[in-house]
Amino acid sequence: MKTSRINALIYRKLPEGTWDALRAEFPGVDFRLAGPPDLTAVDMAWPEVVCGNVPTAWAVEASSLRWLQIVSSGIDDYMVMADSSVVVTTAHGIHASIIAQHVLMTVLMLERGQPFFDRAAQERKWTRRPDVPRRIEGRTLGLVGFGAMGREIARLAAPWGMRIVATKRTPPEVPVTGVERFYPWDELDSLLVEADHVVLALPLTPATRGVLDARRIARLKPGAFVHNPSRGGLLDEVALHAALLAGRVGGVALDTFGDEPLSPESPWWSAPHAIITPHVAGHHAELGEQVLERFRRNLHRYIAGEHVTPVADFARGY
Amino acid sequence: MKTSRINALIYRKLPEGTWDALRAEFPGVDFRLAGPPDLTAVDMAWPEVVCGNVPTAWAVEASSLRWLQIVSSGIDDYMVMADSSVVVTTAHGIHASIIAQHVLMTVLMLERGQPFFDRAAQERKWTRRPDVPRRIEGRTLGLVGFGAMGREIARLAAPWGMRIVATKRTPPEVPVTGVERFYPWDELDSLLVEADHVVLALPLTPATRGVLDARRIARLKPGAFVHNPSRGGLLDEVALHAALLAGRVGGVALDTFGDEPLSPESPWWSAPHAIITPHVAGHHAELGEQVLERFRRNLHRYIAGEHVTPVADFARGY
Repeated sequence: MKTSRINALIYRKLPEGTWDALRAEFPGVDFRLAGPPDLTAVDMAWPEVVCGNVPTAWAVEASSLRWLQIVSSGIDDYMVMADSSVVVTTAHGIHASIIAQHVLMTVLMLERGQPFFDRAAQERKWTRRPDVPRRIEGRTLGLVGFGAMGREIARLAAPWGMRIVATKRTPPEVPVTGVERFYPWDELDSLLVEADHVVLALPLTPATRGVLDARRIARLKPGAFVHNPSRGGLLDEVALHAALLAGRVGGVALDTFGDEPLSPESPWWSAPHAIITPHVAGHHAELGEQVLERFRRNLHRYIAGEHVTPVADFARGY
Repeated sequence: MKTSRINALIYRKLPEGTWDALRAEFPGVDFRLAGPPDLTAVDMAWPEVVCGNVPTAWAVEASSLRWLQIVSSGIDDYMVMADSSVVVTTAHGIHASIIAQHVLMTVLMLERGQPFFDRAAQERKWTRRPDVPRRIEGRTLGLVGFGAMGREIARLAAPWGMRIVATKRTPPEVPVTGVERFYPWDELDSLLVEADHVVLALPLTPATRGVLDARRIARLKPGAFVHNPSRGGLLDEVALHAALLAGRVGGVALDTFGDEPLSPESPWWSAPHAIITPHVAGHHAELGEQVLERFRRNLHRYIAGEHVTPVADFARGY
């Protein structure tokens, strides 16, 4: 149980009306709000607790910092904290449900030829194609990664009559309802050969960076769809773009890119059969409340001397 | 059991490779294939059986016609056959599954602000909005009509955490899993007041024409989304367009229109928060096989003197 006062820096916009409630809930905590323009004004020795994705260089130098609650699911740049004594907790799992909804949407949009119909509508054309829409029944959904996001995608897709296969670094020991087959991680290529939809449901770690490289893109089932709602660095964008233009890949749904924001000159904007979204798959209008809720729960634990969760696992990278 | 030879006219494009198989399967049937340009060359007294949506005037005059298998789910113009002795069977139910997939896609697209992101991508803009995507959990899905299509939508949406309400002219006597509440048909207005998504899952009949009229559009929950994958005549397009532009309606997904094909001058093409598709919600690449399968099953029954199904119910209008 902490008895001394705690200095807590909130480095993000709070949902409306929550600032006063937060201070009332934690009378033993001194809060400060700061954002990107004024973080420089915050004494680096001041906070013991930080909630928000502060610049990593600042976090590394913050001399009193003991606990950092980041608001992203992946560790990404915070890998630099691996050797520090600061406890880092993540938003792991918070985005899984909303990202799964994005993926189910893009699976349906690609099967139904929606990028084609959207473009036709922009051109005020009532145009059909014999090959779309396609039925989703019997198509194979290949989940590359099976953490909170993969499980939620499988749960939502269960009634659709799709065949679901997955791969995971440590495959579950008991069968998972709805998943027909788990491939060991080193048999990822076998999944890629048979999946109509390849979904990258992975954190970006040294082990997963570039997992869908040019060699593996060449192995995809002809006409397969590639979904990346996770992190841009997971795939070779140049090779994927070439495969899409050559018609070897049937379509893509990319929410994340190696270089964000995507520049106006990017070839992705005009790519055919492509759903391009600005890294919003994991966002939703009430996300701020959910993140704050996790921080509040953890802050109570921190004050009580209990473990905050989930702690970033730097060895696994998430 | 029919013993005399039967003349059967197929008025549609057959799936590749099925013509020879069809003739081999029914040695007692003389088949002819015809399409829109050459139907005039077919002797109107020739066919006893027709498969396909022949012009209604032709069907009414075909003097030997005893059974007409149409390939749409709704009766629409074939209502003129109500007083004839010809048995009319429909494709009722065949499109339910694929239309349900379309509706689930448009529900997700509208919740996630996809029309906004699609337009931004067309303009090569990486732009976000704080209000989208929205979570689907807790939103109310209002099904206006609960036949094969409505049931399938409810089944697919079951794991999404939406609240599902429905209305039907003859509400089921036992509770339906996943549907929280059934409104009697004359309490449709109560459903409209509370639904975040209003889905018209109805045949077009004299009783349903214009069901979503200007008065009811004015009663919709502010910001509600309207989906019409059924028939254009079900709603007042002018009133809906005005409500959308005024922001009282949050978005629309329209696959069907009173006047099809939609002209290049239609205001719908440029409407905001609108998903406009060219009457393809009920289509899929293997639909031809499914329709032919129903016709073949019925033709065996017809030859055996058994009932063909489903027979159009002219009193109900489908």
